[in-house]
Amino acid sequence: MIDPEEQPSSFIHHNSTQEPARRDIGHFLFGHPLQTADEGHQTIRKRVGLAVFASDALSSTAYATQEILVILAGAGTMAFGYVFPISIVIIGLLAIVVISYEQIIHAYPDGGGAYIVAYDNLGRYPALIAAAALLIDYILTVSVSVSSGVAQIVSAYPQFFEYRVPLAIIFVAFITLINLRGVKEAGAAFAIPSYFFIVIMLLLIGVGLFRMFSGSLGVVLDPPHVENLGKSTLTNFALAFLLLHAFSSGTAALTGVEAISNGITAFNEPRSRNAGITLIWMAVILGVLFIGISFLARAVQAVPSEAETVISQLARTIFAGPGWLYLFVIVGTTVILILAANTAFAGFPRLSAMLAHDGFMPRQLTYRGSRLVYSYGIVSLGAIASVLIFIFQASVTRLIPLYAIGVFLSFTLAQSGMARRWWRSGRLKSADNPSHAAHGLQYDKGWFIKMLSNGFGAVCTAIVMGIFAVTKFHDGAWVVLILTPVLIGVFVFIQRHYTSLATGLSLDHYGEPPPYLSRHRVLVPLSSVHQGTLAALRYARILSDDVTAVHVSIEPEDTERARKHWEKWGRGTRLVIVDSPYRLFLEPLLIYIEEILATRQPNEIITIVVPHFVATHRIHNLLHMQTAELLRRELLSTPGVVITEVPYQIL
Amino acid sequence: MIDPEEQPSSFIHHNSTQEPARRDIGHFLFGHPLQTADEGHQTIRKRVGLAVFASDALSSTAYATQEILVILAGAGTMAFGYVFPISIVIIGLLAIVVISYEQIIHAYPDGGGAYIVAYDNLGRYPALIAAAALLIDYILTVSVSVSSGVAQIVSAYPQFFEYRVPLAIIFVAFITLINLRGVKEAGAAFAIPSYFFIVIMLLLIGVGLFRMFSGSLGVVLDPPHVENLGKSTLTNFALAFLLLHAFSSGTAALTGVEAISNGITAFNEPRSRNAGITLIWMAVILGVLFIGISFLARAVQAVPSEAETVISQLARTIFAGPGWLYLFVIVGTTVILILAANTAFAGFPRLSAMLAHDGFMPRQLTYRGSRLVYSYGIVSLGAIASVLIFIFQASVTRLIPLYAIGVFLSFTLAQSGMARRWWRSGRLKSADNPSHAAHGLQYDKGWFIKMLSNGFGAVCTAIVMGIFAVTKFHDGAWVVLILTPVLIGVFVFIQRHYTSLATGLSLDHYGEPPPYLSRHRVLVPLSSVHQGTLAALRYARILSDDVTAVHVSIEPEDTERARKHWEKWGRGTRLVIVDSPYRLFLEPLLIYIEEILATRQPNEIITIVVPHFVATHRIHNLLHMQTAELLRRELLSTPGVVITEVPYQIL
Repeated sequence: MIDPEEQPSSFIHHNSTQEPARRDIGHFLFGHPLQTADEGHQTIRKRVGLAVFASDALSSTAYATQEILVILAGAGTMAFGYVFPISIVIIGLLAIVVISYEQIIHAYPDGGGAYIVAYDNLGRYPALIAAAALLIDYILTVSVSVSSGVAQIVSAYPQFFEYRVPLAIIFVAFITLINLRGVKEAGAAFAIPSYFFIVIMLLLIGVGLFRMFSGSLGVVLDPPHVENLGKSTLTNFALAFLLLHAFSSGTAALTGVEAISNGITAFNEPRSRNAGITLIWMAVILGVLFIGISFLARAVQAVPSEAETVISQLARTIFAGPGWLYLFVIVGTTVILILAANTAFAGFPRLSAMLAHDGFMPRQLTYRGSRLVYSYGIVSLGAIASVLIFIFQASVTRLIPLYAIGVFLSFTLAQSGMARRWWRSGRLKSADNPSHAAHGLQYDKGWFIKMLSNGFGAVCTAIVMGIFAVTKFHDGAWVVLILTPVLIGVFVFIQRHYTSLATGLSLDHYGEPPPYLSRHRVLVPLSSVHQGTLAALRYARILSDDVTAVHVSIEPEDTERARKHWEKWGRGTRLVIVDSPYRLFLEPLLIYIEEILATRQPNEIITIVVPHFVATHRIHNLLHMQTAELLRRELLSTPGVVITEVPYQIL
Repeated sequence: MIDPEEQPSSFIHHNSTQEPARRDIGHFLFGHPLQTADEGHQTIRKRVGLAVFASDALSSTAYATQEILVILAGAGTMAFGYVFPISIVIIGLLAIVVISYEQIIHAYPDGGGAYIVAYDNLGRYPALIAAAALLIDYILTVSVSVSSGVAQIVSAYPQFFEYRVPLAIIFVAFITLINLRGVKEAGAAFAIPSYFFIVIMLLLIGVGLFRMFSGSLGVVLDPPHVENLGKSTLTNFALAFLLLHAFSSGTAALTGVEAISNGITAFNEPRSRNAGITLIWMAVILGVLFIGISFLARAVQAVPSEAETVISQLARTIFAGPGWLYLFVIVGTTVILILAANTAFAGFPRLSAMLAHDGFMPRQLTYRGSRLVYSYGIVSLGAIASVLIFIFQASVTRLIPLYAIGVFLSFTLAQSGMARRWWRSGRLKSADNPSHAAHGLQYDKGWFIKMLSNGFGAVCTAIVMGIFAVTKFHDGAWVVLILTPVLIGVFVFIQRHYTSLATGLSLDHYGEPPPYLSRHRVLVPLSSVHQGTLAALRYARILSDDVTAVHVSIEPEDTERARKHWEKWGRGTRLVIVDSPYRLFLEPLLIYIEEILATRQPNEIITIVVPHFVATHRIHNLLHMQTAELLRRELLSTPGVVITEVPYQIL
């Protein structure tokens, strides 16, 4: 403890790492502040990093194949054969995206999400587009992952089918609570379920392939009913559209691939290299699982259904019935889906904090460690995701059209940004003014080939986004296409406010500071004289020598009593009695204050000291006039008036 | 304007009748404060008084007959014949109640509602029962009257039938708004519709009787379908129950009779006499209308229906079709029903204010003229009435079971109170200690006959209440029987709080006041240095010489900038920099404050001066940390700390 009195210097550095002794229940429920933001001090190895960052990407294998089949069903069961070729194309796309992100990881070793890369290389508006897309995407990650998780449970326990919406909302509420308490994004909590999922899925695929080639693999017994099964004859155009549509749905497999690029700082040094290797490992596992599931889904003739997921059909066919292994698959899939939802709860506030830091979101969000403000973001995320689950009845198929478009928009912007960066890097050699260079930009020998690779990635993802927007427009993509500009509008609105405020409050051209205040009048409104009033008077007397107590006279007896009490306890302080012919309280007080204000001198300030009863039970607050609150509402914009509550309580 | 400086006396009487110059939009929407509470200055003549106070009572003729028929339908169409004898019994009851209230009016010339009479003569709990019953009753007056008004409109315009719930809620919202603006309970606004209703109804009855005796009155053409038409054979017991049940429904005709006794002070002198005469006139008109409608309803064979009211069936039969006269009846009835709902909006806050004055409701309600608090009561009344309309689908028949029980409970209590009063009055002659006497009690020669008359009234209304509670228990009367004790519990809870508070804060055994505060430390938390911070500093410097600015260091660059700015603009004020390793803002500040508090001396107080940005648009408030609000939440119950916001705005 540093006593400021004893410090001769006018700058005192106060160091304290102990925690405040908070008394409220929130502390018990939500836990002590955690050191989550302090990522630099505690880095992780590749194998942990894989578990931490891969859940989002890997979990999408739980629904991507099924969503391809859902669309193909529109052309009849024969069309299900296209699932494998479509999956191959998606794996190709995955490779392109991963190569692009590999380059981002090395160019932005401090973490480079689409927002940062776009801001750095393309400018403000592309960055805001990426940010809006990502925020929407985080919300949908929660909705889609939890809905898919519930779909897995419901597949194993069909009796819960009709409760899937409340079930999903309970899951979201649970994750929200967990995050309000604070979770570390590291350690066994993530590693065990992630590796369990990888192992059980590889086992599923391995056994499936073995049984298939040994000829013992049959087809799904008693498959669920397929809704929306279409005719098998389509025009060439309709078929092409259908295939593109199915492809769009399948691209959901790529969601979450960008996660590692946001969290590079969490890795051990050399972090870019470690993160890059982890990214490639993750992509390989993702590719194997996705292609394996798609291949086997076709082999066992799994069908898309809201009642039973493709994963469930696969597992019970390959493992010959709903035994332990089947249950492991279901549990593993559900848990990794919940973990994936959980990563959005980390990403959403992190991105919000970046946006807030740049002035595009409320500045309070930058204090992302502070529970008081951090929690708003978490609760909003949980609430919006729940609303979406309710609106779309926890159906992954109905949520998917809103999902991947934002992901691909951010992919495209990130890679365009990178392409522009390499182009600039190439020009650096000849140009002599590196002042306009983006963050850490230096000449790179391989700039041309890197530019081509990122550029090709950008073109591919842009095409996918276009396909997505066209084929899924009707299904719900339009919502995202409207929401994105609205969000950008909000960002710009907020930034304008901060900019104009900073200009208005700036001291740069402020000249001399105003002179000291020379006169301080203090008013103490009171309705009766009691210990609380005396506490306010005691405080008022230390503020100024010019104290006036003001009593609004409503009942003559009350006024008489107050006057008598004041004579004894008022210590000679002036008491003004204001008549209230209409039994009003606030209005006569305001008139009196305004009359005082009218004769105010330039360097005078008026403080209104209001006794404020602090109730032991919150309900009691309803029984007391919130005089200070009412005065504040009336006088907040009046210069020269300060309203102070002096709390008193019965001890 | 009185300048307190120039007054040698320490008591100054400040007289001001001008209105405050308020700037907010509420002023435009809701109007200037009115002198409603100032009833003594502006009294009314009998004929205006009748119009003002009779709307509630007279309007009940619009549904009372119909509600009798609804129950009688349970015994088949033949049972409709009982409507006339039942109406006669109800008129007898009306006479008894009116004689009782006549005596109340003379005994309580300052206004005597059931609450006052019961409090004065029976004590606290009976008074609270009466108050609870009346509050419930005011709410139901709004719901029933508006629902019945809408039923009239729907009778004339059946195409609106399916919109009757929204229509009713719109009406309630309209009355609520009107009352938020403030209405005077007097003048042409009331007189014209009330007399129009009386005239048009007398015309209806007159023409009806004339046509009946001249033999030209037919029966209702194309009558609406009767729901719930029962068998015509009933056991004697069942029939008796049915008749009592029908009678209970019909007693709704008596609701509103007590209105005049609440508003005696509004009449010209001799006010008790004028009010008494008006009461008798009102009762006569009510009796004539009610008996006339019941008689003619039977004559034209009107049937009860949600689709068309009895009034509508009567009017189109008597006036031979839906012409102008028919429309006048419908409009007149609707308007008086809306006016009746409006009277509840005056009665509810008036009773609340009385209860608040006696400490049973939040004290703020006593400032009943002040819009800021008065409006809560009006909005609550409108909201609860709307909820009831929604729950009961704007059906008068379904609302009625909740309605009259409260009215009769208050009748019974008022008359029991009066009976007790006369008994006491009789004893005064012999007893020599009038100290326990109730308000204004003196010996009355006719005490015995008056006691008998009030006592008989009390017994009658008590019996009716009993019949009501039994026959209507199932239909909804149980709601009221549960709600009343709950409300009484709330009253008692509130009163206990105020009593214990007054004891705790009392100065009676307070001894010496605590010594003056001897030391005042001021802290100014700041995140950056700008004009707003300087305004806070300027204010802090006039409060005390011991000022410390506190900066929570989150970003090193921000801290460096703040430190530099402070060197130039801080006027040598001490700046303490508090480290925040977790990027928290509030928590390190709280630790620092608690450390300061730990070394606090007994007579020391600490003020935290927080710069507070005043946004020109309310939405901008979301973009700023409400630091003072957060600190207040944490430190409100800590003695010795006062939190002050210094507002700053960009001008």
